[in-house]
Amino acid sequence: MKDIADMPLPTFDDVIAAHDRIRPYIHCTPVLTSEYLDGLSRAELFFKCENFQKAGAFKVRGASNAVFGLSDEMAEKGVATHSSGNHALSLSYAAGRRGIPCTVVMPRTAPQAKKDAVRGYDGKIVECEPSTTSREAVFAEVVKETGAEFVHPYNDPRVIAGQATCSREMLEQVENLDAIVAPIGGGGMISGTCLTLSSIAPHIEIYAAEPEQADDAYRSFKAGHIIADDAPVTIADGLKVPLKENTWHFVSNYVTDILTASEQEIIDAMKLTWQRMKIVMEPSCAVPLAVILKNPDVFRGKRVGVIVTGGNVDLDKLPWITG
Amino acid sequence: MKDIADMPLPTFDDVIAAHDRIRPYIHCTPVLTSEYLDGLSRAELFFKCENFQKAGAFKVRGASNAVFGLSDEMAEKGVATHSSGNHALSLSYAAGRRGIPCTVVMPRTAPQAKKDAVRGYDGKIVECEPSTTSREAVFAEVVKETGAEFVHPYNDPRVIAGQATCSREMLEQVENLDAIVAPIGGGGMISGTCLTLSSIAPHIEIYAAEPEQADDAYRSFKAGHIIADDAPVTIADGLKVPLKENTWHFVSNYVTDILTASEQEIIDAMKLTWQRMKIVMEPSCAVPLAVILKNPDVFRGKRVGVIVTGGNVDLDKLPWITG
Repeated sequence: MKDIADMPLPTFDDVIAAHDRIRPYIHCTPVLTSEYLDGLSRAELFFKCENFQKAGAFKVRGASNAVFGLSDEMAEKGVATHSSGNHALSLSYAAGRRGIPCTVVMPRTAPQAKKDAVRGYDGKIVECEPSTTSREAVFAEVVKETGAEFVHPYNDPRVIAGQATCSREMLEQVENLDAIVAPIGGGGMISGTCLTLSSIAPHIEIYAAEPEQADDAYRSFKAGHIIADDAPVTIADGLKVPLKENTWHFVSNYVTDILTASEQEIIDAMKLTWQRMKIVMEPSCAVPLAVILKNPDVFRGKRVGVIVTGGNVDLDKLPWITG
Repeated sequence: MKDIADMPLPTFDDVIAAHDRIRPYIHCTPVLTSEYLDGLSRAELFFKCENFQKAGAFKVRGASNAVFGLSDEMAEKGVATHSSGNHALSLSYAAGRRGIPCTVVMPRTAPQAKKDAVRGYDGKIVECEPSTTSREAVFAEVVKETGAEFVHPYNDPRVIAGQATCSREMLEQVENLDAIVAPIGGGGMISGTCLTLSSIAPHIEIYAAEPEQADDAYRSFKAGHIIADDAPVTIADGLKVPLKENTWHFVSNYVTDILTASEQEIIDAMKLTWQRMKIVMEPSCAVPLAVILKNPDVFRGKRVGVIVTGGNVDLDKLPWITG
């Protein structure tokens, strides 16, 4: 197994290589607009719909880049990861496409829809407690037993290069963007966005959107060093994990600002998007719209790309319906 | 007010004129595919996403054609209609774009989301009981008082010509279709589909999909004459209305077959689409997928266009969640 600490940071050449490598396994997702939401935000919003992506989330970009970049010899023992959900099923999907085994360590509290999806792609699930500490301990066991290649959900340079293909596509689809907003959890998507924009469109502002109740990236950004929470509680279940050294590199160097939203603001933005745009998105993906509506002075009059990161939501448990 | 009985049936020239007339007010909606649903149906399915249409439904095509085809003199007194929902808000939207008044008679039981949307487009709502009889009586009063131009939700030739632009777009977006499936209520979308396909692609089969619990079109089709139910009960609230003479003309002459699905089959297909395609669609729109999955022998191996008619669903009352 390669150690991430030994891998160099990804460059834009890695992004181009990643894009060529993964193109057969991903969708070039559509960009949708909404006159209603433009009116509400007084900005022009362009929603990059990674909820329509293979396996239902952008994470399939990074996972596919890691899986299909392995030598045959390395691939043989399979891949393994720990993930709050979408990386797990994306890695399972990519491994399945290459025909190699995939083991994922998931919190036992992860949404049932995500567990079902992992199993649907023939991924093997090993459960842990919903804390970073438990997750890392259980995972160490799994790697020891299988010898599988560890593909970290966001700190892995191969993963960051893969996620960077999303904003590369968006720049081809939408002209003259002033800013891009994406959710931040571990920072994989934001790091990929930083990598692409700093390389080919450095004038575009990059905003990271984070739940108030899991605002470790916000506090890290203000403090100038990584602050990690062990088990934050938020409906945005994809955004609970802390930054790591590689994503911190990109976040600290290239992010314009990190903006936060409350749980209720996230739920309202999520329901609003379902209602007006007719798309199913996860709570995590609603954080960007929530911060855009909360900070009109930042976004008014701008052309803003919004990365809708995934759509793997548990339809039986919607946050605005109390059963 | 023009009487529908005095208007000639629409021709494909009317469709071309309608398309040119309404283009500034509608979206050319995207076509989405799902590998998962292709596997399940063993067909190639192409979903024409009119849930992403302006005002959230295909009905804006016909409504815009009627509204923008009026002379200034006729337009002055405004337009009026009765509708179970989407035509109401589409006509309100179109009237708003032209800057003329719109009055709609709606069943008091119509989904709150649709009533809110009509009012959001500045349409005026007059409520009636949820039966065809009550609706027609209340509506006659409204027209008498306002002198507004009646735009029938589906029997109006201007509306049929407008709806026909949907399958015209689809033929440009997807090559070599073998069949198109659309829901049938009053028959406006199906009639438009018949008009376009019989004119420029007569080899493509046309299937209408109907709830078992509102199967008046099915029974009409088998009997060879219109059979109308007064107040059928189905979750597919857009499909409760009966055929009328103009839509019966197209249905009886050009439809390949009418297939039906149970309430549970409709709910299952609706949830499946939300889960796998990440799109919000109304129960009415799930009937085509329900009949495709129920009739594998009819669709296996074919390239099938599926018209997803609208996405105006009440998110607080989802049929698979019992609150």
